[in-house]
Amino acid sequence: MKQIQNYFKKAILLIAVITSGSFSMAQSNKDSEDFMPASTNQQGRQYPQVNSENRVRASISAPQAFKVQLDLGGKKYDLVKDEKGIWTGESLPQDEGFHYYQLNIDGASVPDPGSLYFYGAGRWGSGIEISANDRDFYALKDVPHGMVSEQIYFSKLTNSWRRCFVYTPADYNQNSKTRYPVLYLQHGSAEDETGWKAQGKANLILDNLIADKKAVPMIIVIDNGYANKPQPATADNSARPQSIFEEVMINEIIPMIDTKFRTIANREHRAIAGLSMGANQTMRIIMNNLDKFSAIGGFSGTPNYPSSDVIDPATFLDGKYKDGAAINKQLKVLWLSWGSKEPNPFPGSIGAFRAMLDKQGIKYSSYESPGTAHEWQTWRRSLHGFATLLFKD
Amino acid sequence: MKQIQNYFKKAILLIAVITSGSFSMAQSNKDSEDFMPASTNQQGRQYPQVNSENRVRASISAPQAFKVQLDLGGKKYDLVKDEKGIWTGESLPQDEGFHYYQLNIDGASVPDPGSLYFYGAGRWGSGIEISANDRDFYALKDVPHGMVSEQIYFSKLTNSWRRCFVYTPADYNQNSKTRYPVLYLQHGSAEDETGWKAQGKANLILDNLIADKKAVPMIIVIDNGYANKPQPATADNSARPQSIFEEVMINEIIPMIDTKFRTIANREHRAIAGLSMGANQTMRIIMNNLDKFSAIGGFSGTPNYPSSDVIDPATFLDGKYKDGAAINKQLKVLWLSWGSKEPNPFPGSIGAFRAMLDKQGIKYSSYESPGTAHEWQTWRRSLHGFATLLFKD
Repeated sequence: MKQIQNYFKKAILLIAVITSGSFSMAQSNKDSEDFMPASTNQQGRQYPQVNSENRVRASISAPQAFKVQLDLGGKKYDLVKDEKGIWTGESLPQDEGFHYYQLNIDGASVPDPGSLYFYGAGRWGSGIEISANDRDFYALKDVPHGMVSEQIYFSKLTNSWRRCFVYTPADYNQNSKTRYPVLYLQHGSAEDETGWKAQGKANLILDNLIADKKAVPMIIVIDNGYANKPQPATADNSARPQSIFEEVMINEIIPMIDTKFRTIANREHRAIAGLSMGANQTMRIIMNNLDKFSAIGGFSGTPNYPSSDVIDPATFLDGKYKDGAAINKQLKVLWLSWGSKEPNPFPGSIGAFRAMLDKQGIKYSSYESPGTAHEWQTWRRSLHGFATLLFKD
Repeated sequence: MKQIQNYFKKAILLIAVITSGSFSMAQSNKDSEDFMPASTNQQGRQYPQVNSENRVRASISAPQAFKVQLDLGGKKYDLVKDEKGIWTGESLPQDEGFHYYQLNIDGASVPDPGSLYFYGAGRWGSGIEISANDRDFYALKDVPHGMVSEQIYFSKLTNSWRRCFVYTPADYNQNSKTRYPVLYLQHGSAEDETGWKAQGKANLILDNLIADKKAVPMIIVIDNGYANKPQPATADNSARPQSIFEEVMINEIIPMIDTKFRTIANREHRAIAGLSMGANQTMRIIMNNLDKFSAIGGFSGTPNYPSSDVIDPATFLDGKYKDGAAINKQLKVLWLSWGSKEPNPFPGSIGAFRAMLDKQGIKYSSYESPGTAHEWQTWRRSLHGFATLLFKD
């Protein structure tokens, strides 16, 4: 039965090769054998691997398993078992950058024991780095490195312990009197405050930009975008919890950061940005708090998400975008970016938002990340571009 | 066939219950059903669970699997599949504290998708907290919290990028002129610089001790104990790499910390401690560098490991322990601790070391952690006791 399945797969593969019009099969096979362990592997682990075609090869020992799959990029790839009980197989070529993935062993979805683990897609699990051509801008280089610190704090508004990570630039600990501007930087849906460092490499991006004098030294605060109003004990638990992230940001996080760190605590030296859900959140927050922030970055998201409808500035967000001239005066930076391969509804909703900005005469910077979708490579590039514009008078 | 296996298992279980001499089976079943999700679970995950008998219940959906096991504490427990394809089963009662574990699905050893992940046993994988009676001393409480920062640095001695984590006490950022003593704190074999925070809760232990005025505010530096001399390109790769951790500690880590942080940079205000391999390392380092450190803590380890032989102070470590009176003057704190359930060779080797100290008239503090083995609960308690002795003149 299994043999028949394998023959069937080979036949399909042969048809695919023939219909692809490629006659350099030997060459293609040779190329595909330059697999190397991924940079996101646990130390010393040989799998998963990536080749020059950006295919991922997974491998795991599971001698008694019936079926093992690599679950990556929305597709499940069957692995094949050898005589030692080791299952191995490859994916189609992947986009450059970072992707979440998992293995499926006889119906159990589990992390790959070869990879490091990242929080995203609502779970701690495997991730893999597909080495990008422009990886130099977030490489660990021989430049002065800032530090990332974990802050634990009690939030009265949510009645819970929360934490954020704070990047301070390399000279923060040396110059004990210098004060710094602050960027508040938010993650996306089903991610958390660990994402911008682990997946996003925000600290390395800024280390490199600051060393190259392309960005001014700044503090970055990365908090968790999920913050709900405490539910009264008597409440109907089926009610959807009410997000109070804006209140937590304005009334708890910013005052705490301005107390604990040497910030320049005014709107001219405070920026806010986020990706996807974080873009939606931060672009709303800034329009309610233009006395607190002067720069906004929306990476792969806009406050009209998920709608692609034409926006009426008279009514949208209580008319916050009605007076374009006033906004142009107040916002030193308004940045929008997205991946060229974003899935729906992002192209439509971002497009509708841009059309509204254009109609209102609101100036903004934009960037399209080539060859990337709704994923971290888009957001690394976005932060890299956005950060160069900040706090430059 | 499977049914027969299940009946067989039930028969074995029945025999076990009968021979255990317990007649309170109903009560026992009732007790064992108070399973609650572990504190080390990923947010919102129901499994694994722990009950009041400290048994661990694991559960995973694997509809097509043939055999699923919980691999915990050196034992593998078979899980049982229900009609929905969900496998569930329990372990024997576990010691209080933190344990590494994994699942085994048809021969594949994988992390449990329900748990958070920790570095230990040479891999990132699952861990579970068995709530301890004395958990209050490392609980997250409403006290001022210090911060833990990640430092990336290039080590010329190892020709590699390294990192350490640095705990600074709650008032470090407020008192911009105060300088602090430093404890250098090391992990064990097959662990790394993430262990003392994630598993060891070193930051919370110190937050609580400092708030209670039981320990003086101090900086803690947690680095990686693996540091090898770079191998020349022409070297025989089969040669064992030469550890140069002592040189890295003395010539790179300490000068970096004294530059980046407001330390009191003298021997009276510098302590060093470690667990297991880290105890062995740090107890050697201090005896070679009594001009740098004045306090040492050895948790579940001594420099004569793994030997249990009687130690001759004339020859042991080049006679470093020969002059007991001089050591008593130089070491303000010499602390040894271990778990009451340590496996071999630890009781023998620690015992031989203590006998040598006694013979030489060298004063030391000692502590035995009740009911714990060579695991993190022993080391949390050790740090808790050791830290109260430090930097008190």
